[in-house]
Order: sequence, then C-alpha cells, then structure tokens
Amino acid sequence: MMNAPGVVHGDPHAMATLALVETAERVDGHAPSVTGRELDAYLAAGITSDHESTTVREAEEKLRKGAWVLLREASNARNLRDLLPLVRRFGPSRMAFCTDDREPGALLEEGHIDELCRIAVADGIPAEDVLLLASLHGALCHGLDRVGAIAPGWAADLLLLDDLVAFRPTTVLQAGRVVARDGAPCPEAAHAWPREPLPGNVHPTPEWVRQTVNLAPVGRESFALPAPLVADGSGGAAGPDSPLVRVIEAIPHQLLTTERQLRPTVQDDLIVADPARDLAKIAVLERHHATGRIGLGLVTGFGLQAGAFAGTIAHDAHNVIAVGVDDGDLLACVERLRELGGGLVVCDRGRVIAEMPLAVAGLLSDRSARDVHVEQERLDAALTARGVTLPSPFMALSFLGLSVIPALKITDHGLVDATRLEPVSLSVD
Amino acid sequence: MMNAPGVVHGDPHAMATLALVETAERVDGHAPSVTGRELDAYLAAGITSDHESTTVREAEEKLRKGAWVLLREASNARNLRDLLPLVRRFGPSRMAFCTDDREPGALLEEGHIDELCRIAVADGIPAEDVLLLASLHGALCHGLDRVGAIAPGWAADLLLLDDLVAFRPTTVLQAGRVVARDGAPCPEAAHAWPREPLPGNVHPTPEWVRQTVNLAPVGRESFALPAPLVADGSGGAAGPDSPLVRVIEAIPHQLLTTERQLRPTVQDDLIVADPARDLAKIAVLERHHATGRIGLGLVTGFGLQAGAFAGTIAHDAHNVIAVGVDDGDLLACVERLRELGGGLVVCDRGRVIAEMPLAVAGLLSDRSARDVHVEQERLDAALTARGVTLPSPFMALSFLGLSVIPALKITDHGLVDATRLEPVSLSVD
Repeated sequence: MMNAPGVVHGDPHAMATLALVETAERVDGHAPSVTGRELDAYLAAGITSDHESTTVREAEEKLRKGAWVLLREASNARNLRDLLPLVRRFGPSRMAFCTDDREPGALLEEGHIDELCRIAVADGIPAEDVLLLASLHGALCHGLDRVGAIAPGWAADLLLLDDLVAFRPTTVLQAGRVVARDGAPCPEAAHAWPREPLPGNVHPTPEWVRQTVNLAPVGRESFALPAPLVADGSGGAAGPDSPLVRVIEAIPHQLLTTERQLRPTVQDDLIVADPARDLAKIAVLERHHATGRIGLGLVTGFGLQAGAFAGTIAHDAHNVIAVGVDDGDLLACVERLRELGGGLVVCDRGRVIAEMPLAVAGLLSDRSARDVHVEQERLDAALTARGVTLPSPFMALSFLGLSVIPALKITDHGLVDATRLEPVSLSVD
Repeated sequence: MMNAPGVVHGDPHAMATLALVETAERVDGHAPSVTGRELDAYLAAGITSDHESTTVREAEEKLRKGAWVLLREASNARNLRDLLPLVRRFGPSRMAFCTDDREPGALLEEGHIDELCRIAVADGIPAEDVLLLASLHGALCHGLDRVGAIAPGWAADLLLLDDLVAFRPTTVLQAGRVVARDGAPCPEAAHAWPREPLPGNVHPTPEWVRQTVNLAPVGRESFALPAPLVADGSGGAAGPDSPLVRVIEAIPHQLLTTERQLRPTVQDDLIVADPARDLAKIAVLERHHATGRIGLGLVTGFGLQAGAFAGTIAHDAHNVIAVGVDDGDLLACVERLRELGGGLVVCDRGRVIAEMPLAVAGLLSDRSARDVHVEQERLDAALTARGVTLPSPFMALSFLGLSVIPALKITDHGLVDATRLEPVSLSVD
C-alpha cells in the first residue's frame, strides 16, 4: 500500500484497495517519513511492514508501533548503515534485510542480500543476528511458515559459506541439489533449473509484451516551459524579478527528494535549463494511451552538462521520464524510446550515445544479466562524461516520477507535493 | 497432537488426524522427552510448538529444530525455573509462557501468567524479555495477528502495573473499559462482562451436561488383583518368589512418571495395597458407555495410608480414576462419583470425607472459583491427614491416565507403556 497519505486521510480509493485485502494477514507498507498520529493511522489501517525508513528515529517509531522494519540497501537508496544502530541497540527482532531496487551491476559486482550481510557484519552486528535478518525474519515478516531456517520439515535452498565475514557461497543447493559451485552454475544441474537457457541466453519474448510505447506525436516545442509572471523579460541569468519556482532536488542514495524554491534562468520568456547552475528540465510523457499528456519541471542534483537521458522505467506508472539540458536532445531521447519500444537512452547533439532496449513492456531486458550490465555501464559512462555526479542516475531518474515518496515529484500531470499527495504548480504562489 | 509416538511411527490414525489439519498453519505439539530423529519426524509432520520440556537440553533441541518452546508452570508440572537458563542464554525468541493445568487454589493464591512473570524476574530475566514471554510471544506462537502488544490497530486488554517485580495489576481494562481495580471487579463495569453473574455466583448448568457418569455396576470385587505366578501362596510380605510387577511411580511436580519393577505384597493369591511400602491400588473405570471396562494396577509416590480418592477428571478420556489402599473405599469413591454425576472425592472406612461436585460433564464446577478453592483445600487436607505427601494430589491423579506422557500410565484398558504407546501387562515378562 504505497498511498500512505490516502490511507491516513481516508481516501475512498485507498480504503477500497485495503478492503480488497482485508482478509489478508499482511499488507506491505510504504511510509517514507510518515510519523506521529499519521503513522498511527496508517498502521492501524492494517499495514504490516515498511521498507522506507531512512533514519533510526523513523525506523524505531515504526518498530515501536508494531510494524516490521525492512532495512533497505538498494542500488540507489542506501539506508542500511544508517539503520544498523537500531539492530545494535535492540537486537534484530521484527527487522529484516531487503534490497528493493538493485541494478544488474549492483547485483553482479556487489551482490544481493549477501552484500547486506557483509555490510552488517563489518558494522559490528553479530553474525547470528545478521543471519536472522537475512533469512528467517524475512519469512516471518511475510507470514511464510516453515521457511527461513534449517529445521525438520522446513523448506530451504542452502548456501554453503566458508565464513560469516565474506558471505561468499562456495556451494549452492536448490531443492536439495547442488546447482552452483564457486560462483558458476553446475552444468550437470541444468535439469534442476525451472527452464533451460536458450543459446546465447536469449529467451523469446512474446510480441504482445513488446512495443508498449504508445506516445502521441511530440516535438521540440513540447518541452518549452513558458515563464509566468516575468517582470523584465530581459532573459539571461535569474534576476530578482524572475518567477520563484519549485525545483526537484535529487539526493544521492535516497528516494526522497527535497523541494528547492529558486528563480530559474529565463530566455525569451521561457524557463531554460542552465547547466552552470545544475538546473535541468525534467519531463514525464504519458506513453500507454497516446494521450499527449506531459508534465514539465526543473530538477537539480544530477550535474548534467550536455544532452539528455530518458527511460521507460518510472515508478509506478512507467511513463517516459526524461532529464535534459537541451530540448532537442530531450526530443531525440523520446523518439529513440518510441523506436525501441522502451528502454534507457542517452542522447547528445541529436545523436544516440548509449542505450539499453527493454523489450519486455519497456521494463525488462531479454538479454543476460551480464549483457545488461555492460549496457548499463555504457549508459552510466555516457552520463559521467556529461558531468553527471549523482550515483545510479537512471535508478534515481526512475524514482523521480514516484509520487508517493516525499517531497517533490513529477508525473504526466505535472509536479506533485508527494507529502500531501496533491498536484502543485511550478511557480510558487 | 498428543500422540507423538503415533506421529513418529506413522500410525494411520495419527496421520489421518494431521491430514484433517494439513491446511492449518499451526498444530500444537506435545512431545515429552521426544528427542533426536524421533523429534525430527514429529516436528517434520507439521507440529509447531511444544509445552512438555522439563530440561534445558530438551527445550534447546526443540528450539533448534524450529518448534516454539512454551515454558510451563502448572499447579503440578513446575518446569519454568528449570527452563529459564535457556532464556538467559539465548533471549526469549520463539519461547512463551504457559500455565497448562492450574488448580483454583494456584490461580487464587499464586496467580496465572503473572506468577510466571514474578518467577522469571526474580530469577534474573530482564523485565522486557519477561513481558514478551507473557504477551506478544504467545500470540506469535499461535499465529494471532495484531494482539500481544500495544500498537496502533492492535487489540489489547490492559493491566496497569505499579512495577515489573510484583506484577500486581492495579487496574484492568477490558475492551477499553476499566473492569477491575485493586483486585476487585468494578460494579459499574458489570455491563462490560459478557454475562452478568447470577446471585450467589451460581450459573444455571443445562441438564444435558449434568449426569455424565454412565458406569456399569461395580463391586468391591471389581478391584481385586489376582497375583499371577505366585510360587508359595503364603501371603504376607513380598517374598523372592512373588511375581515381579510394574508399578507407576508418581513424581512431585511432574507429569512424567517412572516405571518401578518390584515384588508386590500378596495375600490369599491377591495383590494388595501396602501403605507401609507406599503401594496403593490404582483403577480406571470407563464411565461414558457403561462398558464395565476397568484397568487395575499399582502406584507409589502418593504416601496414602488410609482410604481412597477418585475423580472424573482423567486426561483425556476423563474416565473415573481412583487410588486407594482399601478396596471398600475405592468402591465408595466410585459410587459417590456416580451419585454426584462427576467430581472429586475422598472416602475412608466407607464414608465420604470430602468432595467437590463437578456438575458440568464431570469436569467443571458450576460454583465460584473461591467456593471451588475451599472444596479443593478440604479435599487436599483430607488426603494430607491420610499421609499423602505428593503436591496437588488430585492434579497428579488426573494425569496418571494420560497415556501419551512417559513412562508408565494406566487406562481402562490396563497399564500402558507411554513411551512406546503400547499396552503392557502388570507382571514383568
């Protein structure tokens, strides 16, 4: 249940959603920065867990109020080290590890739950508590019986480890069979996998999940941002008389953003990107029904100095989301995504610099994890070369459209105050 | 699932019972002294918990194998202090308090779960762990969501305590209303109770649950115990040639018994009770269908010197169970229970010395707890006056028929080896 403000304020749609699951014992929650009586209301509605805590204070309040606290370490949202003091103080009870969103590179180079184990042990958490956080507690949180531990009658896939520091499995058993040794799958265990991989690791993707990008016609002018209430109209740098506007500030390793209010750079009565001030345009284009709906705004925090980048992963509506300092490159990105049927792309001076097709619904690649990782590195390198300093920029981009995580987000309907879950205007009243 | 040997050995009746509940997430267990591969088999069959551990070693094995360990402190089976070192060593995880069977006197004078809290705190367990064992963990063990703690959206009756040492509630809230203060119910809160008490605390008991004692005719000779294989037939004290027989030994504060093997006292080719050797007769009489089935044996450990005592509480078949050193008093007890329609009774020289009618199915009194307590004290005093030293003798009596707790028990079918769950003869082969 991601709509915490809706639950807190009794929004009929949120209530109807909860009513659908009222016989369920568990409803996973999503309550970033929700606190006090609002948190009481949210949890009392039947929410069981939360994975959005970013501070000990926030997580401790959720724990005290009966919620399971999931300690997250995603590619982008890196909250684990900040929350481990809670484990150190109270033990691991009613807490578990979670990764949420991890990019292929993070999976291949850092790992999954094993990486969280390494971090926690290195941070001084006893290994036996770490194992609970990594295994049993996740199962308990989700009400899964007889999994998460090694006991008679319980089901387990097993990782054999040499130590409880590196957490590197030397042998992996799945359903009682050895399926991997020393980091490589066992060929003789191929029959144990649900499905044999096809040659070249390419799985056939049904046509009906391809080509899901259904965009209305779009032009360079689609990204124009008229400057309201400009007094002098002189253009150039922001002056005391240019309009005060809301700007999304992306924060490294966080899904939370902050709302900055500042005077944008204006040229010819249009608000423009200004790389020198780290001000880029951000656009969300409805891509499912070709409505032509587009939300425009400004973002800071990426550091982008040239071109644009865009993707069709944009939680949870998964419209096209694009950030750029050049309207022509914003357009180039969007047109390339239309051709690809979804993906991630970086354009500069009208040319595609790097891209990752996402054949499955514009969300998933049909290539191997390693191929995806190579594409991801090319995309990231293209952005680094263009001044981007924010870690995991495409992951960060995908969350700027998630309008249920504070503070300021953007959808195809425009800017959203994600704390109150209300649309807001670009210009500050 | 009390039939641990049946589950371990795949007994069809036990398997059919488990199949009935196979979709249930929880099956409460009962595995006294079950260990090793037999415990593996029992737990793998789907058993969730156990409350029969008497040693740390036993409880730790159950805990390690995934079972919830319920720390019991009954009137008779007092296991808590023996098991608390487990909490001290590993914390309270996957353990909870339970009382199992408590007599009214124990409830009134010692308490219920509050008494376990006092014992644990006095034994050095941190109060916060004690509260978990007393509240949340019981709910978790039984899969009850949103009870057992104070949190938004959780349901709780509340006890307000002055301290975490005496655990004496000064105020009790039930469903949000104050229903008791300083140990007495609040008259103004009478409407909060499910049902208002009738004058004199006497609740009407429907006729169909009364008079459930349906015994075949029984006489003094019903309790005769022919001595097989006696060589000399001389009567008097046990000699080297009298038969070696199995004797149930009752153990203070335990539901477990031991099997003693000794040569009984024989007179006129009959095995007789011998108070000087603390050997009493024990009888179980089928009381539901008047089949006339009766099991006879010998018991030691009570210390009874005169008369007999009997009751219609005898787990879990609840037949008539009687212990006596005089066949005429055994008969007097049984006949009085027939008249009462169930209860507890002490007879001596053919007269009723003390009794407690149990109007509801021969199991429950329809009197107030305080009245029952007074009756219970009279019963116990009558036995103490007749030499009985075993604590809670009627409670102990009620478990001598429970054929699923080792080692030697007795039913209307005769003696039972409760470890292997097989009938055994009185005489040792």
